[in-house]
Amino acid sequence: MYMEGPMAGFIDKLASSSPEPGGGAASAAAAALGAALVSMVANLTAGKEKYAGVQEEIASLLEASERTRRELQVLVQKDTEVYGVLAAAFKMPRETDGEKAKRDEAVQAALMEATAVPYAIAEKCLEVAKLSEVAAEIGNVNAVSDAGVAVLLAEAGAQCAALNVRINLKSIKDPDFVDEKWEGIKHILSRSEKLREKVVKATYGKLG
Amino acid sequence: MYMEGPMAGFIDKLASSSPEPGGGAASAAAAALGAALVSMVANLTAGKEKYAGVQEEIASLLEASERTRRELQVLVQKDTEVYGVLAAAFKMPRETDGEKAKRDEAVQAALMEATAVPYAIAEKCLEVAKLSEVAAEIGNVNAVSDAGVAVLLAEAGAQCAALNVRINLKSIKDPDFVDEKWEGIKHILSRSEKLREKVVKATYGKLG
Repeated sequence: MYMEGPMAGFIDKLASSSPEPGGGAASAAAAALGAALVSMVANLTAGKEKYAGVQEEIASLLEASERTRRELQVLVQKDTEVYGVLAAAFKMPRETDGEKAKRDEAVQAALMEATAVPYAIAEKCLEVAKLSEVAAEIGNVNAVSDAGVAVLLAEAGAQCAALNVRINLKSIKDPDFVDEKWEGIKHILSRSEKLREKVVKATYGKLG
Repeated sequence: MYMEGPMAGFIDKLASSSPEPGGGAASAAAAALGAALVSMVANLTAGKEKYAGVQEEIASLLEASERTRRELQVLVQKDTEVYGVLAAAFKMPRETDGEKAKRDEAVQAALMEATAVPYAIAEKCLEVAKLSEVAAEIGNVNAVSDAGVAVLLAEAGAQCAALNVRINLKSIKDPDFVDEKWEGIKHILSRSEKLREKVVKATYGKLG
């Protein structure tokens, strides 16, 4: 489990010629850093008299950012696992027509599984971007730059995850599945980009 | 040392109410993930017959990406340390005029130090973005999405570091220092944004 191992070890493994962990795991890790910064802003606002009026919203924000962070940390590992399933499917025998058909079916199923993970990462990234907006609006103004960093990492994570969705969709033969997933990704990217622009602007506004 | 500890521990600490590690360390960590992905593309290209014509460039690329990655991993830690120096300066006594002057001087010096770290992170992020461009151009096409992820994390890292430069510049009283650093950051952001646009476009082009 990468999350329990040393950070330097994970980054070393990322740099190596082993195809996993790769960009998908990195995007989930970057977004998890973003989610953690939303939690930090919430934690620096909780219990402060100056922010007495927003304590309920801050508690909900913290609950949501910690949940999303945990989900992203799980997805770091999961991205690596689905890659293993896909690699195994590609290695199935394809001598006879029967073998070819069986392999094709296994590869298509594994590609759909492998699409689902970066898709889920992109969805969680959008969630982090939305939470960053709340953190920048109502959180401790002394930590507003951390809300800005959170939205930047979340938007980058969504863009990264989209690239990993695209790779898998390229080889999927069901056009309805491909269209549905790509339309979903385009929507997530468009929302994330708008949130990045808005929250970064708000952050600079509050920094002065 | 965060890099030697478990990754989950670093992210937990980021999420806590402790002001360090904060957004600066997170931006260096995200860019280090990007640098590692450039190394991965280089490692997946090295020694491959199909890429025989670019082996020298790939060796230089790997050397540069690994150097930049190490520098960014050091900056994760350093960002936390300068924060400590600044916090200590702010806590100096300020009862007498003499004490006030001494504290002011220490705070200004610490702010300049605290600016230098995110400034260096932004410079290294631009370096990673430039290396991503090379990786996308000449690296193993099967790993092109990782070059795309690298540029996205590098550009986000630069934007994050810029926010952390801005916070410190706000309180620095030397207008020449402030102008010089902010002009430098604007240049880094403009170059990084152009590289993000170019490399992401090239990545989608190669993914098909």
